Amino acid sequence: MPNPIHQVTFQPNNQTVDVFRHGENLLRVAIAAGVHINASCGGNGGCGKCRVIIDQGQPESEKSAKISPEEWDKGYRLACTTKVVDDLTVTIPPESRIDNSVLRKDLGQKQHTLMARDLNSLVQGVKINPAVFKYYIELPAPTLDDNLSDLGRLTRELKNEHQLENISADYFLLRRLPRLLRDAKWQVTVTIVYNPKGLKLIDIEAGDTRDKNYSIIIDIGTTTVQGQLLNLNASHQAEERSVIDDLESELLVASDAKYNSQVRFGEDVITRIVYSQKGNGLNELHREIIKDLNEIIDNLVNKGGIEKDQISHLVVAANTTMTQFFLEIDPKYLREDPYVPTANFFPPVRAIDLGLKLPDYVHVYTFPAVASYVGGDIVAGTLGSGIFQREELTLFLDVGTNGELVLGNCDWLVCTSCSAGPAFEGGGLKYGMRATTGAIEQVRINPQTYEPMLLTIGKEKPLGICGSGVIDAIAEMLLVGLIEPNGKFNQELNTDRVRKSETGWEYVVAKADQSAEGIDDITITEGDIDNIIRTKGAIYAACKILLESVGLTFAELDSFVIAGGFGKYINLERAITIGLLPEIDVEKFMFVGNGALLGERLVSVSREMMGEAQNIAAMMTNIELANNMKFMDEYVAAQFLPHTDTNAFPKTMEMLK
Amino acid sequence: MPNPIHQVTFQPNNQTVDVFRHGENLLRVAIAAGVHINASCGGNGGCGKCRVIIDQGQPESEKSAKISPEEWDKGYRLACTTKVVDDLTVTIPPESRIDNSVLRKDLGQKQHTLMARDLNSLVQGVKINPAVFKYYIELPAPTLDDNLSDLGRLTRELKNEHQLENISADYFLLRRLPRLLRDAKWQVTVTIVYNPKGLKLIDIEAGDTRDKNYSIIIDIGTTTVQGQLLNLNASHQAEERSVIDDLESELLVASDAKYNSQVRFGEDVITRIVYSQKGNGLNELHREIIKDLNEIIDNLVNKGGIEKDQISHLVVAANTTMTQFFLEIDPKYLREDPYVPTANFFPPVRAIDLGLKLPDYVHVYTFPAVASYVGGDIVAGTLGSGIFQREELTLFLDVGTNGELVLGNCDWLVCTSCSAGPAFEGGGLKYGMRATTGAIEQVRINPQTYEPMLLTIGKEKPLGICGSGVIDAIAEMLLVGLIEPNGKFNQELNTDRVRKSETGWEYVVAKADQSAEGIDDITITEGDIDNIIRTKGAIYAACKILLESVGLTFAELDSFVIAGGFGKYINLERAITIGLLPEIDVEKFMFVGNGALLGERLVSVSREMMGEAQNIAAMMTNIELANNMKFMDEYVAAQFLPHTDTNAFPKTMEMLK
Repeated sequence: MPNPIHQVTFQPNNQTVDVFRHGENLLRVAIAAGVHINASCGGNGGCGKCRVIIDQGQPESEKSAKISPEEWDKGYRLACTTKVVDDLTVTIPPESRIDNSVLRKDLGQKQHTLMARDLNSLVQGVKINPAVFKYYIELPAPTLDDNLSDLGRLTRELKNEHQLENISADYFLLRRLPRLLRDAKWQVTVTIVYNPKGLKLIDIEAGDTRDKNYSIIIDIGTTTVQGQLLNLNASHQAEERSVIDDLESELLVASDAKYNSQVRFGEDVITRIVYSQKGNGLNELHREIIKDLNEIIDNLVNKGGIEKDQISHLVVAANTTMTQFFLEIDPKYLREDPYVPTANFFPPVRAIDLGLKLPDYVHVYTFPAVASYVGGDIVAGTLGSGIFQREELTLFLDVGTNGELVLGNCDWLVCTSCSAGPAFEGGGLKYGMRATTGAIEQVRINPQTYEPMLLTIGKEKPLGICGSGVIDAIAEMLLVGLIEPNGKFNQELNTDRVRKSETGWEYVVAKADQSAEGIDDITITEGDIDNIIRTKGAIYAACKILLESVGLTFAELDSFVIAGGFGKYINLERAITIGLLPEIDVEKFMFVGNGALLGERLVSVSREMMGEAQNIAAMMTNIELANNMKFMDEYVAAQFLPHTDTNAFPKTMEMLK
Repeated sequence: MPNPIHQVTFQPNNQTVDVFRHGENLLRVAIAAGVHINASCGGNGGCGKCRVIIDQGQPESEKSAKISPEEWDKGYRLACTTKVVDDLTVTIPPESRIDNSVLRKDLGQKQHTLMARDLNSLVQGVKINPAVFKYYIELPAPTLDDNLSDLGRLTRELKNEHQLENISADYFLLRRLPRLLRDAKWQVTVTIVYNPKGLKLIDIEAGDTRDKNYSIIIDIGTTTVQGQLLNLNASHQAEERSVIDDLESELLVASDAKYNSQVRFGEDVITRIVYSQKGNGLNELHREIIKDLNEIIDNLVNKGGIEKDQISHLVVAANTTMTQFFLEIDPKYLREDPYVPTANFFPPVRAIDLGLKLPDYVHVYTFPAVASYVGGDIVAGTLGSGIFQREELTLFLDVGTNGELVLGNCDWLVCTSCSAGPAFEGGGLKYGMRATTGAIEQVRINPQTYEPMLLTIGKEKPLGICGSGVIDAIAEMLLVGLIEPNGKFNQELNTDRVRKSETGWEYVVAKADQSAEGIDDITITEGDIDNIIRTKGAIYAACKILLESVGLTFAELDSFVIAGGFGKYINLERAITIGLLPEIDVEKFMFVGNGALLGERLVSVSREMMGEAQNIAAMMTNIELANNMKFMDEYVAAQFLPHTDTNAFPKTMEMLK
C-alpha cells in the first residue's frame, strides 16, 4: 500500500483520514471517510449545502455565490469545489451535518485502499522489453566489394550491433526498402516485432525516430470499447530499471472510450450471436466493431498529437464472443452446448486485413482465450493482477456484462463465468448509465429524512446513475429501512421520495429540478433492485462454486482482486452490504480498474509478459456453470439482501439490526 | 546413364546407335547418329526425300503419297514419319544419302547422352517430405467434459496422431473452421505448410481429400514463363521409397509456357528496369507478370482437370530482376553500380496479396537469390543439379537471356553472370524464334551442294529458327566453308543459298516454298552470326574467368551441367565447334533441361531441399564481371569461331582443316 500524501481531520468528530492523491476532492474524502455532508447537486457547487470551515491548512477552493466574502474570510468553503493540496483540519458546521449515528469508522477509513493501484505489488519484475521495438542504425553504403542485398545489409548490422538473429522481413516492407534506404542516406530506424515464432522487421523510417514509437491497446467489452495510446519510447527510456512503478502513468498518452456500436443489434452477446446467424449478420457485426475501433484509433491519434505511421502495434483483449466478432469468426457454437470457441490462441493478423485503418505493417496481437465465456480480457486481467506469480491464493473478479472469475496462484488457475447482465454498467436500469460525466456514483441517505446526498462523476448535474451509484443506493436504502431484505419497498414511510409509479414502487434519487436539463426525476425502481439482486446473486454464487470446486472457502482467500470499470469508485462496505462481495477482511480487497487494459499494457512493454499470457491461457482450467445444479442452488440462495445465509454476513446483520 | 530401349543399325555404313525413348522419331535418331538423310521440309513428310528401307524390325510408320504400295511392301518408309518401337536395321537408299565424308562417328554416337536426364545421378537421397502436406483426421465431437476449442481439438489430434507440434493457424482458415468441422461431422483433411519458422495450418476440407493435393511451380524467365502442375499426392504415395527416379514423370500433371508479356516493355531486363522508373511503370510491369502467371495457372488447372482449391502451394523461381518485378519491389538499384538487390531471401507471401487468383491460403515460396544477376532460378538449378552434394568439381551453366554460371562442389560454390542476350532464345535474330512447333532445331548442310537438311520441332513446316538450330547452322556453315572463322560469308561459292540482301550477306536455310504459309525465305544473316559470336564469346569467357577466379581450368572439371530451354536438343559437337562450349571430354557434359523447374520440383516434394536451397543461396560467392578487365580481355579473345586461342580447340581445328 502506498504512503498517504495528505491527511484530513474532520471536526467535531476528530476523525482523521489519509489522502492518497494530491488535489483530491474534499467532498469525496469526506464521503470515503464516512463523514456525511449534505449535497444534493452531485457536487457541482449548485446546491451550496456542503459548506465546511477550514481550520488549518491551505486547500484550493473555488469562490461561490453561496459563500459570502465574510464567510470566505472565516474559512467557509464548499467541500465539493475544494481540493486537498495540504494537510487539513476541517469543521463540519451544524447546517451541513447529517446524523452520523450509523457511521462505521472502522470500515470508512479503509475505503481508500480500494482506490490505490500499486502495480508494484501486482506484477513483479516486469523487464522492459517491448514486443515492438526500434533500433537506429547507420549502414555502410554498398560498394562493388560489399554489394550484399539491402535486406542482408540491414540484418547483418542488426546482428553485429544488436545481436538480433533470424529476423524475417515483412513483405510489404521490402517494397519500400530500396528507395527509403538511399533517400535516408543509409541512416534509418527499424521497427521490429517479436512474436513467439521469432523476430520480424515490419517498418523502416529515415533518420532516428526512436522517440516516435506507439502502441494502441483496446479492450472490446460487450457494452463499452476502451482504448489507450501508449508511448513505447517511454518504456524504452525506462529500460535500465528492472521494474516500472506505474505503467499507466509512465506510458499513457491518451485514452478513449465509447459504447460498443453492436449494442443496436442487442444488449448482450447471446442476442448478437443470434443476429449474426441471419444473412450477412456476422459481417455486419464485425464491421460495426471495426468501425468503433477505427473511431477510437482516430481519436487516440488526434488526442496524442501523433501520426498513424508512428503506431507500431495493436493489442486487443476481449471476451470470447467479441474476439470472434472482431476477427469475423462465426460465434454460433459459443452459445450452443457444449460451448466451444473456434480457437483459444490466435495468429497475428495484419490490421488492414480486418478493415482497420492503420499502416500495412501493423499487426494485431489478440489475447488468447480460455473458453466460450472466459475470454482474452480475463487472461489479460489475470496477467495484470499478477496472480500467476504469487504463492498466495487470489480470487480475481471482473464484472462487465458478464461476471468472470479466476482463482489460483502461481501453481494453478481455475476460472468460470456467469451471466451478470449489464446492470453494473447501467444497462437494464430505468435511469442506468455508464460511469461517465453526470452519472451519480455515490449516494448517502439520511436515515431520518431519507434525503439523499449525491456525488456525480465530473461533478455535473445528475444525468442518471451508474453501477457503483446503484450499489451505494440499494445498500443505503437497506440500511435506512427504505427497502426490505427481499428488495421490496417499505411503503409505510413518511417521505415523498418513495412513491408508486406506473412501473411500480420507486425511490427518487434526484428530483428533476436538481438534475441536468431535460432529465426527469431519477429513480431506482423495484425492477432495478430485482435486477441488481439477480446480478449480485449470480456473481456471489459463482465465486462460492469456484472456491468449492477446489475445496476452498472465502475465508481461505489471501487476496480478492476486483477489476472492471463498474468498480472504479465502488464502496466495499456497500458492496458487502448487498451481498455482492463476501464479508471478509476488507484489507484483502484490491481494485485494479480495467483488468484487460492492465494486462495489455504489460504485453505492450514486455515480450516475457506476452509469453506469460500464453502460459496463463494454457494453464487455466474452466469450470462450466451451465447445467451445474450446485450453482443453481447457490444462485437461488443469494437472491436476498445480503443473503439467505445470514451467518455468512455477521457484521452486515449487526448493522441492519 | 540409363539403359537404351532400342538399337537401330544404319546400312550401308553398319552404324549402330542406341535409342533411349520408345517411339523416337527415326529421322532424329539418324541425325543424332550422324547419318545424314535428305530432308528439307522440316520433317513433316511433305518433301518425301527422307526415304529409307526397313530391313529388320517393325517400326510404326504413316502411309504417304510419296511411297507407292509396291515400295511400301518392299519396306520403304519416310524416316520423318516413322517411330522406333523395335530394334531396327535400316538401309539408306542412294537417293536419300548425302555425302558422309565429314561424319564424325565418335562424336555422333554420344549425342544421346545429352538428352538423357537421370535425376538419380544429380541429386541423391531426396526424402519425400513435401513442404505442403495433408492429413486426414477424425476428431471426437466436443462434449461438456471436453469442450476444447475447435482449433485446439485439431492441433491436439495432429500432435497425438501425427506428432506435429507448434502448429500455427492461418487467420483466414479460422474463419471457415467452425462451420466446416461440423458440416464434415469432424472428419476432415488438413493442409499444413512447412516453412523455416515452423508449421502452419492453411486449409481444411471435409472428408478425405488427401488424393487432391497439388503444387504449381513457375519459372519466370525474361523471355519465357513456364509453369508445371505437380501432383503432391503422387509424391506422398512414393513416401516409402528413399529416392524418386524421375520426379518430373512421377509428379507432372500438366505443363504450360508463354512469352513473358513484359517483352512489350523491352526485350531485356535493363530496358524494363528503365521503363519501371517512369510513372506507374513498376506497377505496370508487376501486373503484366502477374497476368502471365494467372494465365498459366488457369491453363494448368484446366489441363490438369483440377479445381483451384486443390492447389496448396506456389513455388516461383526467377532471375533477380524478374523476382523483384514479381514482388513489385523497385529493381532500380539492380542495374546501378554496385548492383545491389533489395533482398536475397524473401518472406512467404500470400498469393492473393500479389494479385494472383488463387485461394487465400496459398502462399508463395520464392527461391532465394544470390546477387543482382544470379537469381533464384540459378539457385534452383544448382539445387536440382546436385552440385552441392558432390565432391566432384562441377560447372553449371544456365543460358537464357543472360548466361549464369555456378562452379563448385559440396564444400564451396562460386557464381557469376554475363549478359548473353536473347539470341539463344531466338531473340534479336532476323528469323529467330522460341523453341516451339515450327522452329528449325537441327540443320545439316551438304558440303558439296550447300543444301540444308532441316528438322523442325513438331515436324511442321518451318516458321523460323531457334537457338539450337542457329548453333547447328553456324557450325555447319563453318565446317562446309560457307563462312570464315571471323563469321563473314565466303562470297565466292557457287550456290544461290548465299546471297546479299538489303541487310547484308545471308544464307537461305529454308526457301519460302518450303516454309510455313506466309513465311518468306528463312535466312541466317551476318548480323545474326555476329550476334551469336558475341553471345557465345561472353559465355565462354565467363566460364573461363569463373574457373580462373578459383585457380582452375576447364581440364579440371569433372562435370559440366547445361541447363536452359535453348539446349534441349543442343548438339554438343556443334556447340564446341563454334566455341560456345570448351573442348573437353563430351562424357562430362550433362543436360538437365529447365534448371529452375528441376529445383522447384525438389522443393515441392522435400522440405529438406527447401532448406538446402536457402543454404545454397547463403554459401554462394558471387564474382562480379562488370568492370572486370580480365573478363573483357577473354571476351574479345572469344570473338572468333571457335576462338582466337586455337590450342584450346585442337579437335575442332583438325576438322576445319
